[in-house]
This record gives sequence, C-alpha cells and structure tokens, in this order.
Amino acid sequence: MNVIRKQYSISEYPTILKEFLKWLVLSLVIGALVGVASAALLASLNWSTNYREAHKVIIWLLPIGGLIVGLLYHYYGQSVAKGNNQLLEELNIPKDIIPFKMAPLIFIGTVVSHLFGASVGREGTAVQIGGAIADQFSGWLKMNKHDRRIIILMGISSGFAGLFGTPLAGAVFALEVLLIGKIKYNAILPCLLVAVVSNSVSREVAHYLHVPHTNYIVNLVPKLTLINFFWCVLAGIIFGIVSTFFSKGVHFFAQFSKHIKYPPLRPVVGGFAIAILVYFIGTKYIGLGIPTILESFTTSMNGYDFALKLILTTFCIAFGFKGGEVTPLFFIGATLGSAMAFFFPLPIGLLAGMGFVAVFSGATNTPIACTLMGIELFGMDSGVYIAIACVTAYVFSGHTGIYTSQIVGTSKT
Amino acid sequence: MNVIRKQYSISEYPTILKEFLKWLVLSLVIGALVGVASAALLASLNWSTNYREAHKVIIWLLPIGGLIVGLLYHYYGQSVAKGNNQLLEELNIPKDIIPFKMAPLIFIGTVVSHLFGASVGREGTAVQIGGAIADQFSGWLKMNKHDRRIIILMGISSGFAGLFGTPLAGAVFALEVLLIGKIKYNAILPCLLVAVVSNSVSREVAHYLHVPHTNYIVNLVPKLTLINFFWCVLAGIIFGIVSTFFSKGVHFFAQFSKHIKYPPLRPVVGGFAIAILVYFIGTKYIGLGIPTILESFTTSMNGYDFALKLILTTFCIAFGFKGGEVTPLFFIGATLGSAMAFFFPLPIGLLAGMGFVAVFSGATNTPIACTLMGIELFGMDSGVYIAIACVTAYVFSGHTGIYTSQIVGTSKT
Repeated sequence: MNVIRKQYSISEYPTILKEFLKWLVLSLVIGALVGVASAALLASLNWSTNYREAHKVIIWLLPIGGLIVGLLYHYYGQSVAKGNNQLLEELNIPKDIIPFKMAPLIFIGTVVSHLFGASVGREGTAVQIGGAIADQFSGWLKMNKHDRRIIILMGISSGFAGLFGTPLAGAVFALEVLLIGKIKYNAILPCLLVAVVSNSVSREVAHYLHVPHTNYIVNLVPKLTLINFFWCVLAGIIFGIVSTFFSKGVHFFAQFSKHIKYPPLRPVVGGFAIAILVYFIGTKYIGLGIPTILESFTTSMNGYDFALKLILTTFCIAFGFKGGEVTPLFFIGATLGSAMAFFFPLPIGLLAGMGFVAVFSGATNTPIACTLMGIELFGMDSGVYIAIACVTAYVFSGHTGIYTSQIVGTSKT
Repeated sequence: MNVIRKQYSISEYPTILKEFLKWLVLSLVIGALVGVASAALLASLNWSTNYREAHKVIIWLLPIGGLIVGLLYHYYGQSVAKGNNQLLEELNIPKDIIPFKMAPLIFIGTVVSHLFGASVGREGTAVQIGGAIADQFSGWLKMNKHDRRIIILMGISSGFAGLFGTPLAGAVFALEVLLIGKIKYNAILPCLLVAVVSNSVSREVAHYLHVPHTNYIVNLVPKLTLINFFWCVLAGIIFGIVSTFFSKGVHFFAQFSKHIKYPPLRPVVGGFAIAILVYFIGTKYIGLGIPTILESFTTSMNGYDFALKLILTTFCIAFGFKGGEVTPLFFIGATLGSAMAFFFPLPIGLLAGMGFVAVFSGATNTPIACTLMGIELFGMDSGVYIAIACVTAYVFSGHTGIYTSQIVGTSKT
C-alpha cells in the first residue's frame, strides 16, 4: 500500500483490505490499552489532586516531590527524559524503539508532581504512555519504518483522545503536531480508529472509576455580525501572542535552571520556590486548576490570573516537573478570555472557550485539531468563533512552540 | 512573511500585522462579493427547479438546453471550459489570470442545465464564480505567484462556504482539494476568514430572497458500541467503493461522448437520451434532487436509487452539462446510506448523513473538509460516525477522484 497509484483496480482490493484489517486490529488493541491507561491516569490525578486539596500542608514537601521525580529520571529515565520531543524526534528520524519504561516513569512523575502541587498538565503523560505502549508493537511485529511511524502516531492520537475525551482532535493532533504548517494523511485512518476506540474505552473505565471527563459549557453564542467578527479576530491575535510568551517562558526558565548542574536538584530548588510562592498567593495556580477553568466560563477572571499561571507553569516545566503543558494552556487561555469579557462585547463563556483552545493552538501549532477539540467540547454552535480564534492564534504565534523538536514544514503565511 | 523563522521577534510584528490586514480587507471584499453571488445562484437554481417541476414538459427541450450550453462554451468559453480543473491547474502551475467570464458563463450554463432537467450539481459553479471573482484582484493588485495562489484558494473557499452554508468545510476544502493526502497551511487564515464572510453574507441575502439554505436533520445517534463501530467502518468502505464508480463513470461516459466530434452537439445528444429516460423513470433523478435527499433521512430508499443517480449524473457531466458533481454525490450517498438501513442496525438518518458526506469525501479526497461539513450540517452528536465514514471512504476510494487535475501528494496508507 506504499505505492502511489492513480486508481485501485479490483485486483488490488484484497491487499488493501489485508492492510486495512491489520490497522483495524491494532487500533482495537492499542486503543483498548491506552484507553484503560488514560482512565487510570485520570483517576490517579483525581486522587492526588483531592488529597492535596484536603492536606494543603503537603505543598511544603514539593521539594521532596521534586527530588523523587529528579532522581527517578536521573537514575532510571535518562533514555526517556526528552518526553514528547523524543516521540517527535523518532517520527522525524527513526532510531530506536521507545523504551516501555517511558510509560510508568511519566505516570509516576506526573502523579507525584500533582500530589505535591506543581503547576503542570497531563497530556504529555497521556501522549508518552500512548507512544510507549504503541511502539512496543512495532518491535514485536518487526515493523518497517513506515509502519512504525504510523504506530507511534497512533500512540499519540490514542493518548490524547483517551485523556481529553476528544477523538477527532486526538487523531488530527497526531497528524498536525509533527510538522508546522503541513499535514500528511497516510496515517489518518489508523489514527482516527485508535482515537475512537481509546476514547470509548477510557470513558467506560473512567465512568466505572467515578472520574468522568469534565464538561465545559458555552451556552450563549451570539450571531457573527461584522463587529463580532472583528472582536473575534482581535481575540485570536491576543491569544496567539500570549501563547508565544508561554514558549518563551519555558525556554527562559530552562536556561535559568541549567545553572544547577546536578539535574535531580533542579526540581528540589524549583519546588522550594513554588512552595514559598504558594504560601503568599494561595493554591489557585497549582495543579491542573480545573475548578478555575470551569469558573472562567461563568465568572470574569482577574487580568493577572493567566499571567501568574503562565509563569508558574513554565517555571515548573523548566525545573523538571512532569505532566505536560496543555491543561495549564487551557487555564491560561480560559482565564485570559474570561478577563477579556471586561472589554470585549462577547459572552464570557464564549471568550473563555475560545481562549481555552486558541492559546493551545498557538503554542502547539495545531489549529485544526484545536478547532475540532473546541467543537467536541463546546458544540458546533461556537464552531466559527472557535475556528477563527484558533487559526488566528496559530498565525500570530510565530514558527515556534512548546515542542522544540517540531519541524517547520511550511511558512504560516 | 514568506520567510520561515523560528520565532517572530517584536520588530517583525508590524510587517506581520500589515500582511494580515491586507488579507483581512481582501477577505471582507471577496467574501461579500462571492457571498452575494452564491445567494444569487441559490435563488436562480431555486427558480429554475420550481419552474421545471411546474412545467415538466420542458424536459423534452433538454436537447435545446444542451445546445445553448454547448454553443455558449464553444464560441465564448473555450478558455474557461475546464472549470474546476482549470483552477487546480492554475494553483499547481500558475500561468494566466482566470478570465472573469468564467463566472457568468458557468452561472448561465448551470441555470440552463437545471431549468431543462439535467442531473448536475452546483458547487462547481460556486467554486468557479468564487475563483474567477477572486483572481481578478490578483491582476488589479499585481500580486506575485505566492499571493495569487492564496487568492484563488480564497475564491474556492468562499464559493463553497457561501453555497452550502458551511464555512469551516469551505476553508478546509480549498486547502485539501489541491493535493491528495497533504495539506499546506500557508493560506489557512485568509481561506477561513473569507469563508466566514461569504457564508454570513450569503445567508443574509438568501434569507432576503426567501431561499434559505437546506437544513438536514440527524436526530438519532446511538452510542458508539463495538458493534456500531464495525458497522460504521463497513459503511465507510462501501461509500468509498461507490465513490470510485462515480469517478469511473465520468471517465467512461467522457470517452463515449468524444465520438461526437463537434462538442456543442454532445449535450444535445445527451439531453435527448436523458429526456427519453426521464419519460420512462420519472423526474426523481434529475436536477439537484434535494427533496429526495431530505426524504432519505427519514424514509428507506430503494437499493437502486443511488445507482440510477450515479449513472444519470456521470452521463450528464460527461456530455457537457454544467454545475458540478457534489449535490448529486450527496444524493447518491444519502440514498445509499438510507437503503443500507435495511441491513445495517444504525438509524436511517445517521446512515443517510454518513453517506451524504462520505461519498463526497471518497470522490474528492477531502476527508477533513467532509467531516467538518457533516458536523456543520448535522451537529457534533454524529461527529464520530461522520469522521469514520469520511476517512474510511477516503482510503477506499483509491488515488483518483472527480478532479483529474488533483495531484497525489502522499499515499493514502
């Protein structure tokens, strides 16, 4: 099926069908495994967040949590420490099978980071667990490079879809994330099928474990008049520019943390700084911050909320805490959008929803996945606003992002 | 803005903003013009369809209608006769500004084709009107090749969006249609903005002219169980294979019609054949067939409906009638899906909706645009079913389609 033909003849259909069945079976198996893992991650993060909220004093132990994560990766995880970027590098220049230990290490690292109150996300965890699980199959089945690429993309797709409950966004995210400004479709069907399976399994298991996926509601969407169109574009520009601050923030603090030569000490120092900061500003900006994200859809947030979350998260990531950037990006975008409702004549929920996905779009360069995610989470009514915000933010965020191993495929304009 | 940079610095933002404002203004102007033209097309087709239905005897004059279209293109339209393929060729290898007469010629050709009862679509018309209007600006503004490419894509996007009332699908269709299996994003923002403007303007004008866009309703969407997942994939495979018959049908009848050496005579002979056929089988399969499409969502169609429409449409297109293929593809997909409800344990409306967009996806190789269109028309509830059907149909339709000037960008698997 690697050969490009102008038209399939009848005689080719058996080969096509055989290939197709291979990917269908792999989608079911990988989707089921990653779906269960995603639900387990949701449950574990739910537990660690609840425990921390109930015992806030634990945040003083964040340096210890940092030391655990730091030592874990220093002694056992050198070969998987690059995380998401490692997946992207293997996709660009395939070398070695991703070690399976990437999955348990990132799982433990993320749960510990959240338990003690770092400000990090969780999609990096899901994507790395997905990638590590999926890539084992390419070893067992002795796959060639072409098939192995597809299977790593399936891991990314299923992890994203299972975690956020957004199968279409998961599939397109895997296709979009590798190259800035270009998609190739040769993995589109396996990525979609595995995302759908992972999402269904994850929802079933999460329901059983009483950790349902969060529902965000954008209940008021005005008609897209010319004035609203302009406000929507302007909002997209702001979301795009803020997303570049996030990328710059990670790079800035990463330079800073490298002054500490022994890597396991970095999260210790970082954890200490965060603990002191939390003592003064409270716990609003640590962890996933889902209650605040939800509140953004109905209540106007402060103009500085997004900035504090941005600083804390980029600091935590740069100092070695684990989890990812996406849920903090949701927080930053939703609180920023919510605060913009003070000046913008658009409903607060709509602005929060637009920011939620648009800052993510700018930071990861995945405008179509983010548009689909917005539609999957908030419904089609807000679809046009969401799309304008995501695509405008994508264009205004420059040719960089949080994934330094992303390659520029084509200019944005 | 053509230079690829890793990150925009502050000093670049004025340039970026200037470029952006250029495309914003062009989006407003082109979107407004194409939106009005799309609404005028909708109104004209509404009138010609109503007139034909009220005076069915006019179908006997289809050979005369064919002669009018044939002579029009033979004497005035040689330079624009390739239609959609001409737009794709200009995008691939830019040569000459599209003559503006492409717009009025395709408009008249389509209205005449529909008035006398050919089985054709209307999206080709909208896309060519959009392309012809937009490309005039690249002449007036003395644009370079890069910008001219963007502006032709804006024409396609705005025509599609204005006609079908689906801005997101319009924007992605323009990006997807050029290359099979690859998207480049450098025109994504202008394409989206112009589609949104065209859709809004078209809806306003169409409302004023009392020709609203059609509402299709998929009211029952079951949970995606494993069994439903398999049925959905199987449906997608069938939609994909049927879409290849459409492409093959056009090529087959085109060979056939070339035996008539004088081109204007082709639609005369074709029209005569159709008129006789309609005498025996009735008027169900001519024109756009929107009443039948709507009926497919609630009533089980005959197993042969899709096949007759497929034969009639490919015959009409090959013999030189004008309009396009997409609404007939909707007809074929919706009636086929509807008929499949006899065997498939999925709701009839859902199967009709899946077929509606999936056969289109297979025939045009635009799976993400078709998924977005399905979501825009039927809502997000059916989104996962729609996506699986569209992507599976895309993979099973081979590397060809109704646009012979489409280039294979990457293999489908």
